[in-house]
Amino acid sequence: MTLTPRVKAILDHYESDTPGTKANLYRLMNTGKLAGTGKLVILPVDQGFEHGPGRSFAPNPPAYDPHYHYSLAIEAGLNAFAAPLGMLEAGAGTFAGQIPTILKCNSSDSLTTQKNQAVTGTVADALRLGCSAIGFTIYPASDYQFHQMEQLREMAREAKNAGLAVVVWSYPRGPMLDKAGETAIDICAYAAHIAAELGAHIIKVKPPTEDLCLPAAKKVYIDEKVDIATLPARIHHVVQSAFAGRRIVIFSGGEHTTTEHLLDTIRGIHQGGGFGSIIGRNTFQRPRAEALKLLGDITDIFLQKV
Amino acid sequence: MTLTPRVKAILDHYESDTPGTKANLYRLMNTGKLAGTGKLVILPVDQGFEHGPGRSFAPNPPAYDPHYHYSLAIEAGLNAFAAPLGMLEAGAGTFAGQIPTILKCNSSDSLTTQKNQAVTGTVADALRLGCSAIGFTIYPASDYQFHQMEQLREMAREAKNAGLAVVVWSYPRGPMLDKAGETAIDICAYAAHIAAELGAHIIKVKPPTEDLCLPAAKKVYIDEKVDIATLPARIHHVVQSAFAGRRIVIFSGGEHTTTEHLLDTIRGIHQGGGFGSIIGRNTFQRPRAEALKLLGDITDIFLQKV
Amino acid sequence: MTLTPRVKAILDHYESDTPGTKANLYRLMNTGKLAGTGKLVILPVDQGFEHGPGRSFAPNPPAYDPHYHYSLAIEAGLNAFAAPLGMLEAGAGTFAGQIPTILKCNSSDSLTTQKNQAVTGTVADALRLGCSAIGFTIYPASDYQFHQMEQLREMAREAKNAGLAVVVWSYPRGPMLDKAGETAIDICAYAAHIAAELGAHIIKVKPPTEDLCLPAAKKVYIDEKVDIATLPARIHHVVQSAFAGRRIVIFSGGEHTTTEHLLDTIRGIHQGGGFGSIIGRNTFQRPRAEALKLLGDITDIFLQKV
Amino acid sequence: MTLTPRVKAILDHYESDTPGTKANLYRLMNTGKLAGTGKLVILPVDQGFEHGPGRSFAPNPPAYDPHYHYSLAIEAGLNAFAAPLGMLEAGAGTFAGQIPTILKCNSSDSLTTQKNQAVTGTVADALRLGCSAIGFTIYPASDYQFHQMEQLREMAREAKNAGLAVVVWSYPRGPMLDKAGETAIDICAYAAHIAAELGAHIIKVKPPTEDLCLPAAKKVYIDEKVDIATLPARIHHVVQSAFAGRRIVIFSGGEHTTTEHLLDTIRGIHQGGGFGSIIGRNTFQRPRAEALKLLGDITDIFLQKV
Amino acid sequence: MTLTPRVKAILDHYESDTPGTKANLYRLMNTGKLAGTGKLVILPVDQGFEHGPGRSFAPNPPAYDPHYHYSLAIEAGLNAFAAPLGMLEAGAGTFAGQIPTILKCNSSDSLTTQKNQAVTGTVADALRLGCSAIGFTIYPASDYQFHQMEQLREMAREAKNAGLAVVVWSYPRGPMLDKAGETAIDICAYAAHIAAELGAHIIKVKPPTEDLCLPAAKKVYIDEKVDIATLPARIHHVVQSAFAGRRIVIFSGGEHTTTEHLLDTIRGIHQGGGFGSIIGRNTFQRPRAEALKLLGDITDIFLQKV
Repeated sequence: MTLTPRVKAILDHYESDTPGTKANLYRLMNTGKLAGTGKLVILPVDQGFEHGPGRSFAPNPPAYDPHYHYSLAIEAGLNAFAAPLGMLEAGAGTFAGQIPTILKCNSSDSLTTQKNQAVTGTVADALRLGCSAIGFTIYPASDYQFHQMEQLREMAREAKNAGLAVVVWSYPRGPMLDKAGETAIDICAYAAHIAAELGAHIIKVKPPTEDLCLPAAKKVYIDEKVDIATLPARIHHVVQSAFAGRRIVIFSGGEHTTTEHLLDTIRGIHQGGGFGSIIGRNTFQRPRAEALKLLGDITDIFLQKV
Repeated sequence: MTLTPRVKAILDHYESDTPGTKANLYRLMNTGKLAGTGKLVILPVDQGFEHGPGRSFAPNPPAYDPHYHYSLAIEAGLNAFAAPLGMLEAGAGTFAGQIPTILKCNSSDSLTTQKNQAVTGTVADALRLGCSAIGFTIYPASDYQFHQMEQLREMAREAKNAGLAVVVWSYPRGPMLDKAGETAIDICAYAAHIAAELGAHIIKVKPPTEDLCLPAAKKVYIDEKVDIATLPARIHHVVQSAFAGRRIVIFSGGEHTTTEHLLDTIRGIHQGGGFGSIIGRNTFQRPRAEALKLLGDITDIFLQKV
Repeated sequence: MTLTPRVKAILDHYESDTPGTKANLYRLMNTGKLAGTGKLVILPVDQGFEHGPGRSFAPNPPAYDPHYHYSLAIEAGLNAFAAPLGMLEAGAGTFAGQIPTILKCNSSDSLTTQKNQAVTGTVADALRLGCSAIGFTIYPASDYQFHQMEQLREMAREAKNAGLAVVVWSYPRGPMLDKAGETAIDICAYAAHIAAELGAHIIKVKPPTEDLCLPAAKKVYIDEKVDIATLPARIHHVVQSAFAGRRIVIFSGGEHTTTEHLLDTIRGIHQGGGFGSIIGRNTFQRPRAEALKLLGDITDIFLQKV
Repeated sequence: MTLTPRVKAILDHYESDTPGTKANLYRLMNTGKLAGTGKLVILPVDQGFEHGPGRSFAPNPPAYDPHYHYSLAIEAGLNAFAAPLGMLEAGAGTFAGQIPTILKCNSSDSLTTQKNQAVTGTVADALRLGCSAIGFTIYPASDYQFHQMEQLREMAREAKNAGLAVVVWSYPRGPMLDKAGETAIDICAYAAHIAAELGAHIIKVKPPTEDLCLPAAKKVYIDEKVDIATLPARIHHVVQSAFAGRRIVIFSGGEHTTTEHLLDTIRGIHQGGGFGSIIGRNTFQRPRAEALKLLGDITDIFLQKV
Repeated sequence: MTLTPRVKAILDHYESDTPGTKANLYRLMNTGKLAGTGKLVILPVDQGFEHGPGRSFAPNPPAYDPHYHYSLAIEAGLNAFAAPLGMLEAGAGTFAGQIPTILKCNSSDSLTTQKNQAVTGTVADALRLGCSAIGFTIYPASDYQFHQMEQLREMAREAKNAGLAVVVWSYPRGPMLDKAGETAIDICAYAAHIAAELGAHIIKVKPPTEDLCLPAAKKVYIDEKVDIATLPARIHHVVQSAFAGRRIVIFSGGEHTTTEHLLDTIRGIHQGGGFGSIIGRNTFQRPRAEALKLLGDITDIFLQKV
C-alpha cells in the first residue's frame, strides 16, 4: 500500500526513531480495513492471564484456542493482535506475516492484591516471533511504578535498537487513587503524558471521566477553564497531553457495556481525535459472527469523516 | 522409532519452537512403554529435598541411592526421570542416554514457611548432564509469584535457545487461597493457563476438585454451565485451559492414597484427555516389585483406547 | 566563537576530564546571548512528568508541544534545553544542532509520596539524541539517597567515558528535614558539596534562605561568623562549598513569584557569583512574548558587570 | 602416590565431574597421613572472623599468625587447610603446593544476630591462590537459605567449570529450629541431603544427637524403626542421606570438650562410616605440641580397621 | 629511593599480591619524610561529604579548595592524600605524580541515620586519576555489614587485578554496640581482623580504649590476661590481630583534642608498633602554618627509635 499523507504526517512525528521502527509503525497503520487512515483497532487477548481462562473464555469456548484470536483479528480487518508470550507462540507459525503482532511483555493475574506485574516476555522473544512491537503495562501511582518504569526503559531501549515499536498500557492505580480517580480526566491525561515521556510510540489509556482527582491539578483545570465536559473534549485533552498529538494514543473499551454504549464511546474517541481502540473482552466473549459484526461497526466509525 | 500421527500432531502444536526443542519433546514422547502414544508417565524424585531424606526414603531404604531411581524408571518403561542437580549428577554418567532426564531447576524444603524456592540448577547444568528438559516450579498466588515467573522467563528463554524443553510445575498457593482453593477447578485451570502463557512446553498441575474458589470465576462457571461434575470433565477443562489442548498437561498423583484410588485417578486423567502422570512417592516408597507392578498398571491404563 | 579568558578559566577547573567532555562544557557556555561570559541560563521542562500535563501546560496551551520549548529556548538565546527522554525524542531531529540539550535521565511524578525517582533515560539515549549532557536528580537526606548516588556514579562514569557533561540536580529532602530545612543555607551548601564530590560538572540547587538546620553545622556557622545575611552572601557560600568555585553552580527560580521578585533573585545569584539560572515554569506558563521578555531581562542581568 | 582401590571407588561416585575436579578430589584424599584411605582430616581456621581474634587466638598466641596454621596442618599430616581469603593470601606464597587449601568463600561474624553470611571470596581468588576447593556455608532453615543456595549454585558452577572441588558447610538454623533442633538427627541428615542435592562434592555437618525435630519426619523415623540409638548409627544415617554414601561427608568436632570426649566422637564417626573430621578450635587453641599429639591420635583412629 | 630492609620486610608479607600492587605499596611507603621507615602519615579529606562543607572548612576557609589539601600533604611530606571522587578530580591533573593518592570509594553524609554508605567511586576512576590505592569503609556490626563486605570483595578483586592497593576503614557500629563499644579493645581488634580477612592491604581503625564489649570475648581476655592496660599495649594487640603484624594497620586521630593529647596518642601508636596515622580534621581546620607544625611534630615522632 502506498504511503498516505496522514500516515506520513504521523510517522514524521517519530523523528528520533530508526527506519526499522518506522517501518513497523507503518505496518501497524497500513494493515486491515483502516489501512492508511492513521486510525487503529487492535485485538488484545491477555484476559486469560489477567482474569483466568474460565472467566475469560467460557462464554465463547472456541476462544480457548489461540488460533481463534489470530483468525478473528485477520478476518475482522484489524490492525494488530496483542497477546502474551505463550499465546503468540501457539499461533505465530501458522499466521506468520498475516497480521502485525504485539508481544505483551508483562502480565499480572487475579491471584494477588499486589499492584505489580511480572515481565514474561522479552525483545528477543518478540523478534523470534516476528512481532512488530512490544507491549508493556505500567501502573503510575503504584508502589512499583518506578521499578516498572525502569524495566520499561530497558526494554524500550532494546526494542528501539531492534527496530520494534513500543506500546505502553498506562493504567494508574495505587494508594493515592480511589476507583474513580483511576479514570479521572487529570489522571488519564497524566498517564498518557508519563508514557510519552518514557518514550512510548503508542499509548493505551482508559476513556476518561469528567472527575478531577489531584487537588493541585483540579485548581488549574478550573482556573484555566479546560474543556472536559464531553467525551470528545476529554479525548482531545488526553491526546494533547501526549505531546500535542505527536504520539499515537488509543483507548480501551472499558468494562462490558451494552453494544450501543460501547459504540457511543468509540464515536467519542473518534470525534475527539483519538487514534483508535484496543478492544478485547467485548469481542471475543461473543459468538464469532456477532464479534465480526461489532468490529465492522467499530471500524466503520473510524472510517467516517469527523 | 517412527513418528506416529499422534506424536506428530502434538509436535505440530509447538509451532514456534526450534528443531532442537522438538527433538527433545519427541524423545520424551517416544521412550518407554508409552512411546508413540502421546501419553507420558514421568518419575520425579525431589522429595528428599522437599520433605527430607528420612521421611522420603526410610520406607524403602534402597531409594536413598540415586541409581535406584534411574533404574526403576528405566525398568518400568517410563518416559523420563526428573530430579534436582545433585541426584542427576550422581547417576548421569552411568545411565547416560538410557532415559530422558529433566533437571528440576528450583527446589524448596520443609524447614521454612516461606512459599518460595531456590534456583539450584541451570540450563548449562542441564546441558552438561545430557538432559532433555528443565523443570521449574511456580507458585501462582504466592507473594513470590512474579519473581518466580521472571526467573522462569529467563531460564525458559535460555532453554529454548539451547534446544531443551521446558516443564513447569504450576502449584497455586498464597494468601488468597486456603487449602481447598489450591486444588479448586478454577484454580487448577488458571494454573495451567498461566504456565502456558509463560511459554511452558509441558505443564504439571494437581488433579482438580469440583470446588470453585474465586467469586468472579465461580459466577461464570455457573452461568455458563461449565461441566466440572466428574474428574474426566475437570481434566478436560484444565487441558482446554492450556490453549485448547495445544500444550501437554500432565497431573501429579497427589497425597498417598490407596492403590485403587490412585488408579481411579489415573483412569480419570486418561478419560479426560490428560497427557499423562508424574508420580513419585506413590512408587519409590514401596518395595521395588510392588512399584514396578503399580507402574505397569498405570501405563496399561494409558495404553487403553478411550 | 573564540575561547574567552573566563570560559578558559572555567574549563581549566575540569582538569581530570576528557577533551570530549570539555568540548561539551564549551558548547554549553558558548551558546546564546551569554556565550563566552561563563554564565548560563537553561530551560528545563520536566514539569509535565513531575506535576502532570494539565497543571503544567494548561496556563499556556502551546506548551503541550515539545517543539514549543525547543524554539523558545533557541529564540530567547539560552544556553541549553533540558527535558526527559520522550520530550527530547519529539524534537531532537527538527532542532538538531541548534541548541545544546541535556537529557534529564531520572524523573518522579506527583502520584506517590515516595521520595524517589525512576531512571528513565540512559547515556546511550543521550548520545543517540545528540545531547551535550545528562541530567540527574539526587535527594540527599532521603531514604533512597545512597541508591540514587550509586545510580549517578554509574551514569556519570558512562557519560564521562562518552565525552558528555554531567548536570546534577541536588534537592535535599527526607525524614531529617522539614520544609524550611530543605532550603536552609547549610543544607543548600551541603547539597552542592555532595554533588561536587560525586563528580558533577554542573550543579543545580535551590536559592538558599538564611535558616540553619543541622545543629552541629549551625554551631560552626555562628562560631566562625560565616556571612549568610544576604542572598549574594549565601550564593557565595554555596559556590564556595562546591570546591571554592571550581564547579559550575546554577540556581533554580523557585516557586512561582512576582516577576520583580524573580528578577531580584536573579540579581542576587549574579552578585553572589552564581554561574546562572535554570528556569522553567516561570517562563513557559506565560504567553510566549512575555516569556521572551522575561528571559531577555534575565540574560541582561547576567550580562551586567558585578 | 598410586591410586588405591578405595580412593578410586570414591572418585567413581563423582561421575558427572571433570578430570580437573577429580584431580583435586584426588589431591585432597592423597595428602598426609591418611593418604589413600579415603578418610580426611581438615584444619579450618575461620574462627578469627566468626568469633573474633582475641577469643580465638589469645589462648595460644602464635595462632594469630596465618603461617602457624599452614605449618601445623602440614606437620600434622592433615589432608587440607581451609580459611577465608585474607588468611590464605598471607601464606599461600610461602606454602605453595605443600598442602591442599580450601578457600572459605563466605563468612559471618559475632557482631550481628542476622543468620546470614557475606561472600568474601570468589572462584577467581581460589584459582589465583592455588586452592583445590572452595568452601561455602549454607544455613538451611534460615530466612536467607534460598538466597544462600542461589549464591552457592553460581559459585559451584564456576568452581566445577574451573576444575575445583566444592565443600559445603551445611548448618541448619532459623525460626523453625531451637538449639536442640539444629543437631537433631533428622535435621543433620536433611542438611547433608540438601548439600548433596545442591551439587556439593564434600559435605560438612555437625555430629547428630538422637533428637528428632520435625513432626512429620519423627513419625517416619519411629514407624520405620530407623536406628539412631548410637553415634555410629546416626553417622551411618547421615552418610546414607547423602546419596547412600556417594558423597563424602565429614563432621565437625563441635564445642570444646574433654580430649577423651572428642576422641570418642572421632571413633563414632569412623565406626559409622563417616569420611573424616574437620577440626579447628580443639587443636589451635592448645600449645603446638599438644595439638600435634591430638591430631596424631585422631589420624590414628581413622587409620584403624573398622 | 632504594628499598630499605624494613620496607622490604613489609612488602614480603604481601606474598599473594602482584608486582603492580607491591609497587603501589612501595610508593605509599617511600614518599615523604617517613620514606623507607615503614611508617605512614596520610591526609584524608572526606569530612566535607561526611559532615558538610561549612562544618568542615569554615574554621579555615582556604580548605574549601581541593588544591589546598594536595599542597598541604605535599608540603608536610606526608605519604598520601585520600579523598572522594570529586575532590581528587579537582586536583589530580595539577598535582599528578607529586604524591600518592587514595580514592575513597564510598561515603556517607550527616543527613541520615542509616548506618550505610554509597559507593561513589570505582577502580576505573582510581586508575584514570592515577591513584595508588582505593579506600573503602565497612561498618562491622551494622545491618549493612554483609552487603558492604560483598561490595568490598568485588572492588578489592578489581583493584588487585589492576595493581592497586586496598585500604579499608573498619569502623564498627550497629545495634549490638553502644558508643563505648565502638572503640572497645576487643571490637577494634575484631575490626582490624575482619579487614585483614577481607584481603585489605592497609587497615585503618580507631585508637582502642580499654573497654571490653562482647561477653564471650571479655571472658577470654581476662582468663588469658591479655595486656590491654596501656595504649601501646592495646595498639600492639590490634596489630597482632591483623595476622600478627603481617598487615599494615594505621590509626585515626579521633575527635578533636588538645594538640598535646593528640601527640600523646601518636606516641602510643608508635610505641605499640602501629604503622602510622591518618589524620584530617586535626590538621586542615587549623591555619596552614600550625597544621604544618603539627604534621612535622607527628612525623618526627614516627622517626624516633622505639
